[in-house]
Amino acid sequence: MELSKINLDSKLKSFNEYWTPKIVGELNGQHVKLAKFRGDFVMHKHEQEDELFFVISGKLFIQLKSQTLELNVGEFVIIPKGIEHKPYAPEEVSVMLFEPASTLNTGDSRSELTVSKLDKI
Amino acid sequence: MELSKINLDSKLKSFNEYWTPKIVGELNGQHVKLAKFRGDFVMHKHEQEDELFFVISGKLFIQLKSQTLELNVGEFVIIPKGIEHKPYAPEEVSVMLFEPASTLNTGDSRSELTVSKLDKI
Repeated sequence: MELSKINLDSKLKSFNEYWTPKIVGELNGQHVKLAKFRGDFVMHKHEQEDELFFVISGKLFIQLKSQTLELNVGEFVIIPKGIEHKPYAPEEVSVMLFEPASTLNTGDSRSELTVSKLDKI
Repeated sequence: MELSKINLDSKLKSFNEYWTPKIVGELNGQHVKLAKFRGDFVMHKHEQEDELFFVISGKLFIQLKSQTLELNVGEFVIIPKGIEHKPYAPEEVSVMLFEPASTLNTGDSRSELTVSKLDKI
């Protein structure tokens, strides 16, 4: 089997949409995703899945019930299942996500932002 | 619940040992680990676990049966379970690992390099 490495910058250059995670890897039933965020997302939670946000470029805010996290390049946070969170980014931010393959981007808050079928890039 | 972010640089500054992964996060039965590598590791495989290597600084080589991968900063590879691999790094490299909590660093090749009980930092 021939294995290939993934270069984050080159994958990030291949798309421009915001709030539309792309699958770049799969292991142990988990997906590695890349996404670009800008503006406000919806407050939501995932009933079954813990979710990791790692900032590759820019600055990501995650609003929780009683605190707001500010994540800069080289920082990550794990949002445990059941915890309501609202990502937002005044300027464009590039993020790597690590979560179960079953995870829906808007969790329990389906809206026009929901992406049910993710592209693999 | 108060959540804290993790800063990779500050975690990496907190240890110096090579080939001794430290746990920096846990989600969905998976561990996020940081490690510093320098020199040669052993050829090994994991029977049950896929393993992700993401390079934070430096250059990581992974020797496989019929190819050698060269990973630079911002690049990752997923080594599927059952695939023999030998990481090596002529110069120090800092790496983030994603893998099931059950993963043993030397897989099926127990040696003096085996670390059975990992620190959480």
